[in-house]
Amino acid sequence: MQWKSIAECKVFGDLRRLAKEPFDLTVQEALGPERMQHLTCNGPEFDLLYACQRVSKEVVDALQALADECGLAEQFGQMRNGAVMNRLWNYPSEERQVLHTATRDIVSSSPACPGATEQAKTELEKLKIFLAEVEQGKICNGHGEPFTTLIHIGIGGSDLGPRSIYEALLPYKKEGRSVFFISNVDPDDSAAVLEQVDLARTLVLVVSKSGTTLETLSNETLVRAALERAGVDPARHCLAVTGQSSPMDNPERYLRSFYMYDYIGGRFSSTSMVGAVMLGFALGYEHVLEFLKGANQMDEAAAEKDIRANIPLLLAMLGVWNHTFLGMGTVAILPYSQGLHRFPAHLQQCDMESNGKSVQRSGKPVSIKSGPVVWGEPGTNGQHAFYQLLHQGTEDVAVEFIGFRQSQRKQDMEIQGSSSQQKLVANLLAQAMALAVGKEDENPNKCFSGNRVSLTLMGERLTPKSMGALLALYEAKVVYQGFCWNLNSFDQEGVQLGKVLADEILSAMTKNKKEDSDSLASSFLRAVGMV
Amino acid sequence: MQWKSIAECKVFGDLRRLAKEPFDLTVQEALGPERMQHLTCNGPEFDLLYACQRVSKEVVDALQALADECGLAEQFGQMRNGAVMNRLWNYPSEERQVLHTATRDIVSSSPACPGATEQAKTELEKLKIFLAEVEQGKICNGHGEPFTTLIHIGIGGSDLGPRSIYEALLPYKKEGRSVFFISNVDPDDSAAVLEQVDLARTLVLVVSKSGTTLETLSNETLVRAALERAGVDPARHCLAVTGQSSPMDNPERYLRSFYMYDYIGGRFSSTSMVGAVMLGFALGYEHVLEFLKGANQMDEAAAEKDIRANIPLLLAMLGVWNHTFLGMGTVAILPYSQGLHRFPAHLQQCDMESNGKSVQRSGKPVSIKSGPVVWGEPGTNGQHAFYQLLHQGTEDVAVEFIGFRQSQRKQDMEIQGSSSQQKLVANLLAQAMALAVGKEDENPNKCFSGNRVSLTLMGERLTPKSMGALLALYEAKVVYQGFCWNLNSFDQEGVQLGKVLADEILSAMTKNKKEDSDSLASSFLRAVGMV
Repeated sequence: MQWKSIAECKVFGDLRRLAKEPFDLTVQEALGPERMQHLTCNGPEFDLLYACQRVSKEVVDALQALADECGLAEQFGQMRNGAVMNRLWNYPSEERQVLHTATRDIVSSSPACPGATEQAKTELEKLKIFLAEVEQGKICNGHGEPFTTLIHIGIGGSDLGPRSIYEALLPYKKEGRSVFFISNVDPDDSAAVLEQVDLARTLVLVVSKSGTTLETLSNETLVRAALERAGVDPARHCLAVTGQSSPMDNPERYLRSFYMYDYIGGRFSSTSMVGAVMLGFALGYEHVLEFLKGANQMDEAAAEKDIRANIPLLLAMLGVWNHTFLGMGTVAILPYSQGLHRFPAHLQQCDMESNGKSVQRSGKPVSIKSGPVVWGEPGTNGQHAFYQLLHQGTEDVAVEFIGFRQSQRKQDMEIQGSSSQQKLVANLLAQAMALAVGKEDENPNKCFSGNRVSLTLMGERLTPKSMGALLALYEAKVVYQGFCWNLNSFDQEGVQLGKVLADEILSAMTKNKKEDSDSLASSFLRAVGMV
Repeated sequence: MQWKSIAECKVFGDLRRLAKEPFDLTVQEALGPERMQHLTCNGPEFDLLYACQRVSKEVVDALQALADECGLAEQFGQMRNGAVMNRLWNYPSEERQVLHTATRDIVSSSPACPGATEQAKTELEKLKIFLAEVEQGKICNGHGEPFTTLIHIGIGGSDLGPRSIYEALLPYKKEGRSVFFISNVDPDDSAAVLEQVDLARTLVLVVSKSGTTLETLSNETLVRAALERAGVDPARHCLAVTGQSSPMDNPERYLRSFYMYDYIGGRFSSTSMVGAVMLGFALGYEHVLEFLKGANQMDEAAAEKDIRANIPLLLAMLGVWNHTFLGMGTVAILPYSQGLHRFPAHLQQCDMESNGKSVQRSGKPVSIKSGPVVWGEPGTNGQHAFYQLLHQGTEDVAVEFIGFRQSQRKQDMEIQGSSSQQKLVANLLAQAMALAVGKEDENPNKCFSGNRVSLTLMGERLTPKSMGALLALYEAKVVYQGFCWNLNSFDQEGVQLGKVLADEILSAMTKNKKEDSDSLASSFLRAVGMV
């Protein structure tokens, strides 16, 4: 089945026309209680408030028609069922299934793709046993002492998702356990971590699907050398998450290998062993199950065709409205939750690596812009940093707030009549309101134009379950937007050229061949004073 | 003296015309050794390579004419000399000097604004004495034990700069000292820090110029309560950085108060006591002096009128070329140095809060776009995350790489014929090359269009001195771009409306007044289920 881009849909022209006069948020009563209540979508663990989007009923209806005509929900269903979605139709491509959802279907009585879910269950069972053995002291260091620390070595998809989730769930950490991350090939990254850990009590988890990632292997080598210097046998401390039969799938070098499969891309792999091993060590097995359950509930909700009743799909369509029709080039993810401080960096990866493309699945160039630039920092911090531009700048940014009614640790105080958590939520809502309605003033420097769009995802509390739901929500949003623009969201050919050229430069740098002295690589090296 | 925007300059039209056919980086030999060598600007601690910008000699000449006609270097000189640069010409405004450079002029024999530099010297002398007393144990806790830890409480300008610099200079930390930061009003932020420190051995540094910042006061209250619960006298542990005679300038509540002045805005305050107290505790006084020295050298270099010989001014003008003339809405700051992992967040603040404006200093609306969205993460991490979009996406991003020839800690190994540091630099250069030259391929999915611009700031090693230089470099860039667009880069009126509305919502939230039930605030609260 060949699908089409939204640009080829009948309603595309209607939306273009509607975009010339989008809903005006600044007129009196624009944000009345009725609109506020009506433009709310309830889903698992989160509600989506979209009254502060520049959409009318007509626009949402047209977005629904667009979603229907492009068969978005059908494509999502096919993906979950195991269709080969990672492909181009007319050119050689990776030709893989896309089954990150299968890792969450382990909690479902009727998984969409039973084979993949069986594989996920097998790995999870291995993990459960491993964690129990660590807990019981059956797995321990050479002196019979338990492991307290884990170093997670990975990069990109093997790092950002797991790391941001770990940071988000710190209050759920098992007593006495801690995790460190190494990703960058910069030798200062590993050195900084190695300064802080007691290697004798440390497990080292190396994560690479191919088993050949340059950064990860370099960092593994540096850490193994440190283990040896510390008089520790690496084979007793190192764990692998890798593809079956990869060069890293080697019991002589690793205490345990957990498998990841080619049908899960790195940026969608947080709920596979890529995230689960580290999270299991840090939080315990039960919390991992809760996390997967939250993700599964969102996957189920994401299958709904009615965009007004499907948070991820609605989020995707509102994003398309802002990006494709209203021309906003960037999306700011602003969580009002310090625990989510690295989550925007994960979404930046998940979104930009998936949809930063110029070619449709047909092989034809895209005729409209594909994925936006995604960035963000937590509020209220950002309010004292870059919000100035959001309110009064000339770049039009689509804002996505994420908030929770309750704090995680509940260590709060009433100060000047309100708790810090109340102040936090009040600030989130105030920002949405200020962006939308604006303010006039005699002094032009104190004017706020308003009509700056935001939406708010509101949850009860950041827990393993709601974290799983939030992750799956954004994964589904990215997938849906890729379908809209008719992209293959699941490859990353754009990173290949840099790899090839890095080898060329490295070769010029280390061999310093005379005959290469006129090459581009040598010119660059000379320019930065490296030869 | 009233200056003008670049849009009013004679050469503006020429540049518009030149922007229709910018230099093509993809043609054979475009990046020859001559261009590479020629388009390099040497400055203190850093070289700027700009061969991969889409500029010809004609363009750089026109940018020079623009800089001259707008009197950019003169304005910069006036700012350093103490002119009232924080103002609008025809409307009420803050009417303040802008003198962050004076805090670095303490190392100069002829400071540009001697009065302000005297004030900086006085505070620095107080800091020197304080640090010596901490070192000697004259200042200690109630049990006579030395302080090992400092909690820095601040937000925005009182947080991001100091925090990113602390992270960058960790290898220079004094043995046994550590620093934690609390910024967000989210109560989980303070709770997470309080879990990790021994309060009996901890100094608490509260940073707020006005002494009234909501987040900072709330966090201070939470921390003081924790100190009391721990049986510790807060007045013996708390320090203040604040304006003279602010509500926080109170010796009964603080062991010491260090002053900041109204002529230094938060986002430019890292070299004032805002950064120096924490850095002095963590790194020692001598390293703070080195840091200031590096900043001062860059300030001096930034005064040069020839844009080809002034890194910050050249960086600013290339940014204007990319943003105003080539239409790139965002700038990505990509440091190939893990130590700089939070530096892009600081620059995001410094740039977007300064130049995210819509009104010129004259009070007239801007006729061209003002400041861009600034974002970024360290390489090589980003290569495995969002670089896909940089190479093959449809958003055109202006990239700024930052690299160093040597690592900080020099704990490196040769792996497969090269060190990790060599791999790191090779990757930086390869990315610049790949973005610029691109690659053709039969498979459209493997095509790289090229002509994607980057520049590279290359230093020898990330040290206190080069960190100071890098900070001052970007501060001057931001100031110069504000001059170009004729903005007051030194106020932040855009944050006011949100503050007012937050109070309104907080009031509706806590009082839950019946008569307010139809207000906008109440509608928002109901929509998120908070009433």
